[in-house]
Amino acid sequence: MSIPFVNPETTICAPATAEGGALSLIRVSGPQALSIVSSIVDKDLTLQQPNTIRFMRARDGEELIDEVLVSIFKAPASYTGEDMCEVSCHGSTYIVQKLLEVLVKNGCIMANPGEFTQRAFLNGKMDLSQAEAVADIIAASSKVAHDIAIKQLRGQLSNSLSELRSQLLKLTSLLELELDFSDHEDLEFADRDQLKQLAEEINLHISQLTESFRLGNAIKNGIPVAIIGKTNVGKSTILNRLLHDERAIVSDVHGTTRDTIEDTVQLNGVLFRIIDTAGLRETSDTVEQIGIERTYQAIHKATIVLWVIDQEPDAIERQEITSLTEDKELIIVRNKIDQSASTTSQNYIPISAKTGKNFEKLELAIYERAGISLIPEGSVIITNARHYEALQGAQQAIQKALQGIRSNLPGDLLAENLRETLHFLAEIVGEISSQDILNNIFKNFCVGK
Amino acid sequence: MSIPFVNPETTICAPATAEGGALSLIRVSGPQALSIVSSIVDKDLTLQQPNTIRFMRARDGEELIDEVLVSIFKAPASYTGEDMCEVSCHGSTYIVQKLLEVLVKNGCIMANPGEFTQRAFLNGKMDLSQAEAVADIIAASSKVAHDIAIKQLRGQLSNSLSELRSQLLKLTSLLELELDFSDHEDLEFADRDQLKQLAEEINLHISQLTESFRLGNAIKNGIPVAIIGKTNVGKSTILNRLLHDERAIVSDVHGTTRDTIEDTVQLNGVLFRIIDTAGLRETSDTVEQIGIERTYQAIHKATIVLWVIDQEPDAIERQEITSLTEDKELIIVRNKIDQSASTTSQNYIPISAKTGKNFEKLELAIYERAGISLIPEGSVIITNARHYEALQGAQQAIQKALQGIRSNLPGDLLAENLRETLHFLAEIVGEISSQDILNNIFKNFCVGK
Repeated sequence: MSIPFVNPETTICAPATAEGGALSLIRVSGPQALSIVSSIVDKDLTLQQPNTIRFMRARDGEELIDEVLVSIFKAPASYTGEDMCEVSCHGSTYIVQKLLEVLVKNGCIMANPGEFTQRAFLNGKMDLSQAEAVADIIAASSKVAHDIAIKQLRGQLSNSLSELRSQLLKLTSLLELELDFSDHEDLEFADRDQLKQLAEEINLHISQLTESFRLGNAIKNGIPVAIIGKTNVGKSTILNRLLHDERAIVSDVHGTTRDTIEDTVQLNGVLFRIIDTAGLRETSDTVEQIGIERTYQAIHKATIVLWVIDQEPDAIERQEITSLTEDKELIIVRNKIDQSASTTSQNYIPISAKTGKNFEKLELAIYERAGISLIPEGSVIITNARHYEALQGAQQAIQKALQGIRSNLPGDLLAENLRETLHFLAEIVGEISSQDILNNIFKNFCVGK
Repeated sequence: MSIPFVNPETTICAPATAEGGALSLIRVSGPQALSIVSSIVDKDLTLQQPNTIRFMRARDGEELIDEVLVSIFKAPASYTGEDMCEVSCHGSTYIVQKLLEVLVKNGCIMANPGEFTQRAFLNGKMDLSQAEAVADIIAASSKVAHDIAIKQLRGQLSNSLSELRSQLLKLTSLLELELDFSDHEDLEFADRDQLKQLAEEINLHISQLTESFRLGNAIKNGIPVAIIGKTNVGKSTILNRLLHDERAIVSDVHGTTRDTIEDTVQLNGVLFRIIDTAGLRETSDTVEQIGIERTYQAIHKATIVLWVIDQEPDAIERQEITSLTEDKELIIVRNKIDQSASTTSQNYIPISAKTGKNFEKLELAIYERAGISLIPEGSVIITNARHYEALQGAQQAIQKALQGIRSNLPGDLLAENLRETLHFLAEIVGEISSQDILNNIFKNFCVGK
C-alpha cells in the first residue's frame, strides 16, 4: 500500500483506540480541527483555553450522538504540532462510526496509518528515529524491548548521533577551509594526527552501534534459544517447564515446519523464543533426516543452544555438538538427575525436568548468556533494520576516510568521505528522507497513531 | 460472580479501552485519585486546575514507563462524582499493565466491572435507569437501539416516570390526609371521580410503557424475521440478497439447530434477525419432521414472517399458513417473477431473488411491519427486562387500586395500592435498590465503565 503525501492543509480524523472497550477515543488534527469539532458539539472551541477537557454533547444536526469529553490542544503545543481535538466517547462501534461520519461530513478526511506521527515528524515535533520508536513502543511486549524503545522516543539515539555528527562537521569544515586556501599547498588547518584520532573514535562509536543491532534485533523479536539433544532426553518437558509459570504471557508461534515448536517466554523482562527440535542423529531414515536438517537450521538461527543430555556424552558426540554450535552460546543441561547418581561436573547444569529441580539456575544461565546484563548502563541499542543499514553505510564511509588519512589523500577527497558519513547519519534522524522512506516507515503504523 | 460493595473510601483504577489500539486510557477515581497519580508523574496534580489535560512522564521510581496525557477532574464535577484522573498512554499492553501495577502499588485497587458507573449512581450523578443505559449504549449496534439508549441516558425514562410518580404521590397524600381525619367519616379530600380518572390515566401510561417492551426488546436484540415456504422457492437466495449490501455490518449467528440459519441486517437503522428455515411439508419422513418442527419454532419466535411462494398456493396451504402465523406480521412474497407471467395480486410482493427486482419494496415492507415508524415522536420505549418486570408490578398494583376505587374501598387500602405502585416505579430509577439488584446490573458491565 502506498501512502499519499501528507497535505498539511487538510484536517484528519481517526479512531485511536481498539474496538470493544468501555471508552473510545477519536483524534482530530489539522488547521480546521477546532472549528470542525465545534460544529458537532455546538460550542466555539476556538474560544476555549488549550489543554482543557470538557463534557459536551456531540450531535448530527438535531440527533444526539453521544455525551463526550473533548480535549483541546493548540498548535504548536500538541502531539502533531497542529491544532488538535481528542473526543472521548462511549466505546460503541456505532458511535465511533457515526462521529467519524459527521467529522468527515464537516470537512475532515480520514487519516492514513501513522499520519498523526508523520505530521509530528514533518512539524519538527520529533525526528524520524523518535517517530519509529512510537511504533516500537506499541509493539513492545517485554520490559527490555519497551525500555529500549522508550529511550529512543526520548531521543537517546538521536542525541548519540548528534554528538558524532557535530564532531564530523567540525572535521569536514576544517578540511573544506583548506580547499579555500588551496593555493597555499602546505596549509593544513586540520591536523592529520588529530583527524585520524577523531575519525577512529567515530569509527569505534559507529561500530559499537552496529554491533548492538544483533542483540537489539533479538531483544525486539525474542532471543532464539534452540533445545537440542537425542530423543527421550526430555527436551519437550524442559520446554513446557520453561514456559510453565509464564503461561499467561506466552503466545504460540507455530513454526513453518511441523516438527520444530516455537513459543515465547519472558525471563527477567527479556523475551526469549524457545525452539524445541526433533532429536538429533537417531536414524539414517530419510524422514528423520528432514527433522535433523531442520534442527540444524534451528541451531543456525539460535543465539543460545541448550544441549540436553541424560548421560555422559561420548567424545564423537561432544566433538560434533561443539563444532555445530561454535559461534553460539552453548549451555549443556544434564536432565533426569532424579533418576541417576548426581553429577558434579562444572560443565553441566544438572536438572530434573520432572521435578523442576535447578530450573532457576537454568533460567538464570539462559538470561546471562543472552548478554543483556553485560550492556553498560545508558548504552544505545540499535533495534531497527533501517538504522542498522544506514550505520553500515556510515561505517564504510568513515573507514574509507580513515584509509585516506593513512595514505595522505588530499583534504577534498577526505571531506567527501566525511560528508558521505554525515549523509548516512542524517538519514537515521530523517533530516534527509525521501517519500519512499517515509512511506515504508509509516505504512506499518496503526490508524490513529 | 458476586460484586463486593463499593467502598467510597477506596480509589479504583482500570483500563477503559480495549487492547490493540494506538492509544489506551486508564481511569482512576476516588478520594486519592489525584495524589496517587501525582506520585507516578512527579507533579502535584492537586494544585492543577480541574478539567485540564497535560503532557507528563509516568515513572516507576527511576524507570520511565511512558509519555502520557493526564486529565484531571475534581469532585463533584466528574463522571463518578469523585476526584478522577484519566491517563492516556501509548496503546501497549506492557505499558497499560505496568501503569496499573504502579497505580496499585501506590494505593489504588482494581475496579470491579461497572464500578465507575456504580459510583456515579451512588453519588447521585445518574439514576439507575440512566446507569443501565450506559451499558446499552456501548452494546447498541443499530441506530434505533442507540437512539433509545441515549434517550434513556439523557433521562427520558426517568422524567416520564417522575411525572407519573408525582401524580401518584399527590393522590396518595390526599388519601392519607383522609386517614388523619378518620373520625370525620364522610370527609373525602380525594374526590373519587377525579381519583378514578387519574388512576386510569396512570394505568394507561404504564400499559403503554409495558407494551413498548415487546418492540423495545426486539429492537435491542434484533427483530426476528422468519423466512418460510416450500423448498426450492428461493428462501436462501432471498436471505443472501437481503444481507448482501450490508455484509460489512452483518454478523454470523449460528443457530443452536443446524438447519435454521440466522444472520442480522440493518434496514433503515433497525436491526433485523433474519432466520432461514427448512422447507415446510415436503415429506412425512422423520428427519424432515424435525426440520419442520424447528420451522414452527422459528415462526413462534418471529415478529415478522416472510412466506415465500413461487406459484399460487392452494386453499389448504393458505389456510394452514394463515393459522400458523395468526399473531404475526405476515408478508407473502412471490418469487421468480422473472420466470413466470407477472402477477398483479395485491396480496403478494412480486420479487425476483435472482435479479433483485422489487427488493427495495420488500425491505420497506419488512421495515414497516416492524412498527418502528408507528412509534410517536418522543415516546418512551422500554428495552430492559428489569424495567419491564417492575412496570408489570406497578401495573398490577394500580389496577388493584382502580378496582378498589370502583368498589368504594376505604382510603387506607387504596393508599396501600398506590404506595405499592410507587414502590415499583422507584425500583426502576433505583431510589429503592438492594445490593443484589445492583450486583445483577453491574456484573454485566465491562471493566473501566
